[in-house]
Amino acid sequence: MKEFKSLMSYEKALEIVIKNSSEFDSESLSLSDSLGRVLSEDLFSKIDSPSFDRSAMDGFAIQAKDSFSISEGSHIALEIIDSITAGKVSDKKVTSGTAIEIMTGAMMPEGADSVVMQEFTERDGEKVRIYKKVFPYLHVSRRGEDIKEGDLLVKKGAILSAQHLSLLKSQGVENVRVKKTPRVAIIVTGDELVDRIDEKDPGKILDSNSIMLSSLSKKALCKVTYRAMVNDDQNEILNAISNAKKDSDIILITGGSSFGKKDMLPKIVGNMLFHGVTIKPGKPIGFSIQEKPIFIMSGYPVASFVQFYLFVIPYLESILKTKIIKDVKLPFSVSIASEVGRLEFVRCRIEDDEIVPLRIFGSGIISSISNSTGYVLIDEKTEGINKGEKIRFYYYI
Amino acid sequence: MKEFKSLMSYEKALEIVIKNSSEFDSESLSLSDSLGRVLSEDLFSKIDSPSFDRSAMDGFAIQAKDSFSISEGSHIALEIIDSITAGKVSDKKVTSGTAIEIMTGAMMPEGADSVVMQEFTERDGEKVRIYKKVFPYLHVSRRGEDIKEGDLLVKKGAILSAQHLSLLKSQGVENVRVKKTPRVAIIVTGDELVDRIDEKDPGKILDSNSIMLSSLSKKALCKVTYRAMVNDDQNEILNAISNAKKDSDIILITGGSSFGKKDMLPKIVGNMLFHGVTIKPGKPIGFSIQEKPIFIMSGYPVASFVQFYLFVIPYLESILKTKIIKDVKLPFSVSIASEVGRLEFVRCRIEDDEIVPLRIFGSGIISSISNSTGYVLIDEKTEGINKGEKIRFYYYI
Repeated sequence: MKEFKSLMSYEKALEIVIKNSSEFDSESLSLSDSLGRVLSEDLFSKIDSPSFDRSAMDGFAIQAKDSFSISEGSHIALEIIDSITAGKVSDKKVTSGTAIEIMTGAMMPEGADSVVMQEFTERDGEKVRIYKKVFPYLHVSRRGEDIKEGDLLVKKGAILSAQHLSLLKSQGVENVRVKKTPRVAIIVTGDELVDRIDEKDPGKILDSNSIMLSSLSKKALCKVTYRAMVNDDQNEILNAISNAKKDSDIILITGGSSFGKKDMLPKIVGNMLFHGVTIKPGKPIGFSIQEKPIFIMSGYPVASFVQFYLFVIPYLESILKTKIIKDVKLPFSVSIASEVGRLEFVRCRIEDDEIVPLRIFGSGIISSISNSTGYVLIDEKTEGINKGEKIRFYYYI
Repeated sequence: MKEFKSLMSYEKALEIVIKNSSEFDSESLSLSDSLGRVLSEDLFSKIDSPSFDRSAMDGFAIQAKDSFSISEGSHIALEIIDSITAGKVSDKKVTSGTAIEIMTGAMMPEGADSVVMQEFTERDGEKVRIYKKVFPYLHVSRRGEDIKEGDLLVKKGAILSAQHLSLLKSQGVENVRVKKTPRVAIIVTGDELVDRIDEKDPGKILDSNSIMLSSLSKKALCKVTYRAMVNDDQNEILNAISNAKKDSDIILITGGSSFGKKDMLPKIVGNMLFHGVTIKPGKPIGFSIQEKPIFIMSGYPVASFVQFYLFVIPYLESILKTKIIKDVKLPFSVSIASEVGRLEFVRCRIEDDEIVPLRIFGSGIISSISNSTGYVLIDEKTEGINKGEKIRFYYYI
């Protein structure tokens, strides 16, 4: 029996991958270029927000105590000494008996501590009648009430979103330090692979792994800087790896990772830290470090898809110090069995708020992943999942 | 009392927005440029996949009936007439008494109907001993077993993922028709807005809406083709709108959408189909069509954020015929009350698989959205949510 000499457990293999990852470099970027990038430091507020007391309503800025004498049906009259809109500052000071007309967003004038809403006032030439009692700071957005100087704005590791950028912009932040974008090299190997089908050349197979792995890499916060398709030839493969190293941080190489006449990749690559892991599908995954980390992946698209999720993404999460995969716990729709001794990656989708597995076997069946929207994992020690059991569903990126 | 003359229900306002949307144009793109784009037609398989019977194992291709005589401990011997690897085709024909050595992925040779795994064979010069009985099509991936000609591959409206592209590539698809990318114009208005704080010019406010709306637009499958920051001045505003129309499909304009001296946007824009909707926050949303759809949004970032989710995204989903927002139903962590008569947008996050609301009031409080990861909606007729109640959580894009 020719089999993998010994399969490593997923837990052990993942530990080796993580142990061989180190925090990735950072760079400084302008805020407007940093959507979707990973913040590489905690960001603290440098200014109060709002940065000044401002009116939250259209109305009149007054001294609240002037209004204390107002009762149901009565009013007071104050002298209007100025009128300000958002963005303008009054050089007048509100004293007892006076008021400044103010619009939403405008800075509170000196001396005033509250705003009477327009609908409780009536203009009468140079005066305004106030019909409602107010208390200090009513309708005033106070300096620092949203954010105080020194508050944590955004945590290291956050993938910068529209709302993060808006918050940072409102704080006057112009540049942020983010992780550099990891460069991925993708090498597919196999005499049978072609990029286009030629009727005169039967027996060939379209390479669908390159576009899948490059798309997954982009969704996983990387850029693809090198791509090659090579024959099952030691020199061609070594040459591609050597070129890939020049302009990449991570090398993915597919094909020939099960045993057979032409399945020589692990031998050619060498220095394997593991090869063959107790996962299903995706067992023939290998990992090597040669200046750069090299993931040896299956030629079958479903297997390499699973290997990307189970090994490449955790590696990226580790070097970028972030979380790429979103998950949620939901009830499972049916009972399914699973082989003990293998971590099973079950392609699923969410339907009526339950997790529905797509139980299609075979790692060649690419249509099964395009019909699923995520996956659940059944660990080596578990015999399956019971109907109704709550289990963690991981969304595809 | 100056108030909105009458607020329109969210349902009614949304209906007006949708009624004024029409399906967006398509374009043809190469597969490698179409990650994340919206497919604009159903795509059907044109070829069987696999496109030929191929071996699923390393071993020997034989006629199964030759093996029927094998019993425990016995074997047969067959003449090896050829050896093929993936990508190669044999010109020999397997007949009774012969076998062809075959590698995983190689095309099944004529005459053979099954594969004996290598581990149940033993080579002996020009012959091979077979130790195991096989049945027809064992270890053969049959033509069309994954996908048959005419099968639906990917549905219209799908946002093309890594796995879709891999599937299409394996089918020989080179170009796909996808929706064009909607072009968004963003105009922010307000005398108080600045792009950088100048100590000598107090009372100003940093514009954080532009970066938020442009980031949201990008995440919502659009590109931003026009940006302007203008004063509260009729001519400046009309001029910006007129420029925006030249190179955009949708115009977002913020600021001045509550009533007040300077809150003239709806009047300046004109032809309002609605202005003022029973939502919280975000009430002062307006909508107009002037060649292009114009969304009049709040100057407050939280309000315009909510308006983007409640109006702009449904509009985009309607013209692109896709689903941009992901959702999941989960239990709510606490009981909260809500005002009847308003659709409330409650910023939340998922913690321990429950939805936890961030109950922060005020549409200025931008930090509340950057701490949340999604939202729930409490409709106009509902008084709140009970602890433990299952409710739909919408993920931010």
